[in-house]
Amino acid sequence: MKNVNIGMIGYGFMGKAHTNGYAQANHFFKLGHKPVLKALCARNAEKAQEFADNWGYESIETDWRELLKRDDIDAVDICVPNNLHKEISIAAAEAGKAVLCEKPLAIDVAEGEAMCEAVEKAGVPNMVWYNYRRVPAVSLAKQIIDEGRLGKIFHYRANFLQDWTINADVPQGGAATWRLDAEAAGSGVTGDLLAHCIDTAIWLNGNIKDVSAMTETFVKERMHAETGKKEPVTIDDACMFHCHFENGSLGLFESTRYARGHKALNTLEINGEHGSLAWDLHDLHRLQYFNYADDGIVRGWRDVHVSDGDQPYMGNWWVPGLNIGYEHSFIHQVADFLKSLDEGKPVHPSFRDALETQKVCDAVLKSAKERAWMDV
Amino acid sequence: MKNVNIGMIGYGFMGKAHTNGYAQANHFFKLGHKPVLKALCARNAEKAQEFADNWGYESIETDWRELLKRDDIDAVDICVPNNLHKEISIAAAEAGKAVLCEKPLAIDVAEGEAMCEAVEKAGVPNMVWYNYRRVPAVSLAKQIIDEGRLGKIFHYRANFLQDWTINADVPQGGAATWRLDAEAAGSGVTGDLLAHCIDTAIWLNGNIKDVSAMTETFVKERMHAETGKKEPVTIDDACMFHCHFENGSLGLFESTRYARGHKALNTLEINGEHGSLAWDLHDLHRLQYFNYADDGIVRGWRDVHVSDGDQPYMGNWWVPGLNIGYEHSFIHQVADFLKSLDEGKPVHPSFRDALETQKVCDAVLKSAKERAWMDV
Amino acid sequence: MKNVNIGMIGYGFMGKAHTNGYAQANHFFKLGHKPVLKALCARNAEKAQEFADNWGYESIETDWRELLKRDDIDAVDICVPNNLHKEISIAAAEAGKAVLCEKPLAIDVAEGEAMCEAVEKAGVPNMVWYNYRRVPAVSLAKQIIDEGRLGKIFHYRANFLQDWTINADVPQGGAATWRLDAEAAGSGVTGDLLAHCIDTAIWLNGNIKDVSAMTETFVKERMHAETGKKEPVTIDDACMFHCHFENGSLGLFESTRYARGHKALNTLEINGEHGSLAWDLHDLHRLQYFNYADDGIVRGWRDVHVSDGDQPYMGNWWVPGLNIGYEHSFIHQVADFLKSLDEGKPVHPSFRDALETQKVCDAVLKSAKERAWMDV
Amino acid sequence: MKNVNIGMIGYGFMGKAHTNGYAQANHFFKLGHKPVLKALCARNAEKAQEFADNWGYESIETDWRELLKRDDIDAVDICVPNNLHKEISIAAAEAGKAVLCEKPLAIDVAEGEAMCEAVEKAGVPNMVWYNYRRVPAVSLAKQIIDEGRLGKIFHYRANFLQDWTINADVPQGGAATWRLDAEAAGSGVTGDLLAHCIDTAIWLNGNIKDVSAMTETFVKERMHAETGKKEPVTIDDACMFHCHFENGSLGLFESTRYARGHKALNTLEINGEHGSLAWDLHDLHRLQYFNYADDGIVRGWRDVHVSDGDQPYMGNWWVPGLNIGYEHSFIHQVADFLKSLDEGKPVHPSFRDALETQKVCDAVLKSAKERAWMDV
Repeated sequence: MKNVNIGMIGYGFMGKAHTNGYAQANHFFKLGHKPVLKALCARNAEKAQEFADNWGYESIETDWRELLKRDDIDAVDICVPNNLHKEISIAAAEAGKAVLCEKPLAIDVAEGEAMCEAVEKAGVPNMVWYNYRRVPAVSLAKQIIDEGRLGKIFHYRANFLQDWTINADVPQGGAATWRLDAEAAGSGVTGDLLAHCIDTAIWLNGNIKDVSAMTETFVKERMHAETGKKEPVTIDDACMFHCHFENGSLGLFESTRYARGHKALNTLEINGEHGSLAWDLHDLHRLQYFNYADDGIVRGWRDVHVSDGDQPYMGNWWVPGLNIGYEHSFIHQVADFLKSLDEGKPVHPSFRDALETQKVCDAVLKSAKERAWMDV
Repeated sequence: MKNVNIGMIGYGFMGKAHTNGYAQANHFFKLGHKPVLKALCARNAEKAQEFADNWGYESIETDWRELLKRDDIDAVDICVPNNLHKEISIAAAEAGKAVLCEKPLAIDVAEGEAMCEAVEKAGVPNMVWYNYRRVPAVSLAKQIIDEGRLGKIFHYRANFLQDWTINADVPQGGAATWRLDAEAAGSGVTGDLLAHCIDTAIWLNGNIKDVSAMTETFVKERMHAETGKKEPVTIDDACMFHCHFENGSLGLFESTRYARGHKALNTLEINGEHGSLAWDLHDLHRLQYFNYADDGIVRGWRDVHVSDGDQPYMGNWWVPGLNIGYEHSFIHQVADFLKSLDEGKPVHPSFRDALETQKVCDAVLKSAKERAWMDV
Repeated sequence: MKNVNIGMIGYGFMGKAHTNGYAQANHFFKLGHKPVLKALCARNAEKAQEFADNWGYESIETDWRELLKRDDIDAVDICVPNNLHKEISIAAAEAGKAVLCEKPLAIDVAEGEAMCEAVEKAGVPNMVWYNYRRVPAVSLAKQIIDEGRLGKIFHYRANFLQDWTINADVPQGGAATWRLDAEAAGSGVTGDLLAHCIDTAIWLNGNIKDVSAMTETFVKERMHAETGKKEPVTIDDACMFHCHFENGSLGLFESTRYARGHKALNTLEINGEHGSLAWDLHDLHRLQYFNYADDGIVRGWRDVHVSDGDQPYMGNWWVPGLNIGYEHSFIHQVADFLKSLDEGKPVHPSFRDALETQKVCDAVLKSAKERAWMDV
Repeated sequence: MKNVNIGMIGYGFMGKAHTNGYAQANHFFKLGHKPVLKALCARNAEKAQEFADNWGYESIETDWRELLKRDDIDAVDICVPNNLHKEISIAAAEAGKAVLCEKPLAIDVAEGEAMCEAVEKAGVPNMVWYNYRRVPAVSLAKQIIDEGRLGKIFHYRANFLQDWTINADVPQGGAATWRLDAEAAGSGVTGDLLAHCIDTAIWLNGNIKDVSAMTETFVKERMHAETGKKEPVTIDDACMFHCHFENGSLGLFESTRYARGHKALNTLEINGEHGSLAWDLHDLHRLQYFNYADDGIVRGWRDVHVSDGDQPYMGNWWVPGLNIGYEHSFIHQVADFLKSLDEGKPVHPSFRDALETQKVCDAVLKSAKERAWMDV
């Protein structure tokens, strides 16, 4: 068993989700590598220490540059706001560390391209945390599509609907709500939510050629958590676009934080000549499958409870009928990262894979701004 | 096209549902016989005339004995409280009329046996309105079971849950609530609701051998609509029983009018070696089908939207995806009755078929009373 | 009771659905007017007579011009392909008949405008059969929205998904498949399916300002039923667009006949500040309602089974829990038409109402063609 | 932070589930006590060591008597077949250890009574792993019921349906299938599955007074994993019973391993005067709630996605919309056990609580055998 010493930067929502992945992966998966929680890095030493103690990080740092200098760190995990991804990633690659970066890859394609070049030049393992690929039902969808069970694809559609910013009193900026501040986040729902949908779409259905988009900012001003003043809102509150995939199918995407009643409704549906698949995050353990070849009188959407040992990842968990949840997608991603080290192969999505999603996001935002179709 | 002159007795809920069946059957089914709404019979002449005018009955009667004397009546349809079924049915049979009797067949087995003997001796067509057999999804279930797709059967379970009598101010007796008066109805939920479940169960899974039951009357006294006084409630408000079917499978049945949130939740589920089926009345156009032979990773309950032309009865209606509803089960029963006349064959459920359900109801009520298993 | 003599042109799918509406409306609704099935008009006399006999039309015509000359016809019902709507409607209006025209109103806005002018000049009752407004759950949605329960609206989305033209051997043109021939239909899914979604959307959420659309024709050539030769397909197989409503909300619409597994999945969802609603045609008796004001720990989408007497239209049918179906939307539209005659008021959607939907359809098709935003 | 040294006996399905609970509880819950994985005890030293290494147990034992002698063990966790619960529990209590016993408590009431007396006499903390109480949706149900939101209760029903023993080639006995051997398990589905339903029922709805049951053994002989020979099957394959609760409501319970299509469908539904609740394990993050007080036209079952911070346990996990799964019920039970140590209060279900479930199970089995009602 080889150790992989982890240096984690950030302890927010994603810092906790990734750390849990490191803590749990080897309990359930037989692997040749094992993560060691070596150092937790964050500016606030007191909070950093508290988080480190809770999860068993051996040490803390308060400056990520110091973390990168340490010889006992093999992999750097970047869980800070999007506008810091580029600088840290490039420095980490140059320091010879494996780089595991939270999504989206970057603020824009130019940044992302520089990041790809850095990790590729350094030859270090690199990965972006588009975790939804590793929900077992989504992985099963990938398997079904790759087996050709759907035939020629006609349609792909995806939503990511939330409702937590309808209240105009929610502030922007700061530790809790930097996702509402374009300076820190780059964009609004496009980079935060649609990027997930786009990554999954590309993985399942191939690249997107061109897009036609619309965005909207419903609440025009919000208190800024750092300035304490009402400031113009610069993010997109909602975004929708239609597109062509390279395989000739049509795509339709929508994301918003103003869809009352939906907490985190990340959905996908794909329609092919021979069959269709549908999935959503609120019932993430289920995959809907329609098989046109089924005998006509008893043909219908199959509600597949993805909890059997022969379904992706599930052989490592409990017994049929018993669900796993959201956090397991990160455990699986850690397990697959460790397995890639075992096998000496790249893990996906790599920085280069994630750049493709970034290209679509950039084209979407530009299309919305210019009210015109954009090539990706 | 031959006419079948209908004499309808009663104009309540069932009188309306059956009449609509007569009005609609030939619009959608190609048949050699056609019902003619010859006479409507009810004690209140004014209301009878109003109903007759609305639906096109050619005449009215206020005494069912007069109706039976008429030569221009071919078939008598009995839509009056259960305690009148026996006398009218026997008289109708003796008058040589076809007898179409609302369910349940009778107050008890003794009455039912006499009714069977009367129609059989007279050799007249006879039918009981257990309409749920003719919901297309239930008919499809019958077809699937008869094709052997489920293999050996282990379990059958059914509910009929309502909530409309929770309020203790609902009266008993009278035209609107005779179903709450044991004198008129014979029993409570057992004869009114469970009888439907039992008829369907026997049709799908064969006869029941023995039963062990429990009943309860939650509201002990209700105002009686006829006496104007509080009277003891003599019906069963809830009834549940387990049983053995003759084919070795186990049955579980429950009915109540105290299941808050359920309006008319008539359900069934049958589990066999190779597959299972489930259905409920609230979404009566859907049949759930599980096929164990499906490839394991994509196996799941199929949600079959029963609206295609190759599914029972649906070729006579609209196009795939477009639902029919409750009233259509009666239209189908009329169509099948007319078809049986075309072909000179009996229609089902006959009085004799319905007697089997009566036997189970009697055994259930006796088992509950004596707190012991009863053979059917 | 006053008679309204109906002259029906066409006996296809819609001819049957409307005729059933005339046959049934007065059985279930108390009205001062009653339709009389006076004449059925179609070019094929034999088939016309067969349909007339089945439904009780008193006479037939084989030339609609002759029908319009008859003094005993009060209302003309137009159930022929879309390219004939204009000529017949205008002639009918000029002959002083009420004009009940199947949707979409016309081939394009120019035709529709002429039709509106004709009926308005003649001062005759006029109506377009956008029947889905009268599905009780959709009518209930309208009531909830109009009561202000949703507050400010942010999003409206609707789909109409089918899968019946995936097989490239389905022909175009002719009596059965004129909907696949742009000459007869004007457009493909836009006029046939999306027009339904747009009519409902405008009714529920107000007018649409501008649109950005994409269309696709997946199967480029199909045998033409009339020429017997492979001909280019000129309709749109799929169409999707996003848009702004005049109330500031965003719209997203999609329709296709290539969504494997969906028979007639007409859906809508509307998200407001205080709540949301969702509905679909496959379970047309249910309305999903989310009320943010509900106590947080027990807040969730309510699955409303629309079958109670205090819900729109349902007091005229059976008892709670018992469903009605697709055909009832037409019965309700007939009932509302007759009621409008009772009250001397216009019925909706009028030709003028339907013209608004036509404007959106035209803008959508133009936007898709020119790859640019279009004002409606 | 005080340590609680755990001595785990067994490393099967439950050994893994409990161990994961110990590993995770303090990561997500702020507590004053923390479990230390001190020793893993199992007869096979090699496998015990492998399990210990994987999870971080500091040592192993191969004889539970040796484990009990150790001073460094504070709490003993019993994850071995049911017929060993009594002896180990009593010895552990006598050794002054806290005793955490997997369900069901014992083989029968006599054993269970002795166990209760032992832990009570010793005054040691004691708990039985009826984990489903700690599924957040079930805990929420408890809260709703205790707040009186349902009013007077009329009905309680629960199922636990599986299908994994339909194949007659599944053996009985041995490490993998001791649950099919009555000698090791005490009974079949009654103790294994229905016991879960009964514990939850008693917790939510109070004690059960009397029962009337039926059991069945569908497969009469199975190969025994230890003898290598076909032996008679002595467990119950299916069990169903109806009962009276002390609060006057009626209960209906069913469990089987022959319900094709159901993997682990543990369900409950409770109907009260003012509302109802329903839940099932296949979608364990959802609770269905019906509130009769809701405005009639928009009244319907609410589908509550239990993932908000104000719902039981969920404030310790992720963000709204993100699910947890099966294993978390054990993490919660560990957290509550640790909290009980913090507060010096008993944890539930205690041995005494679990004895009540044992009493019902015994009465059920006796009722089935004697074909008669039994008092609990």
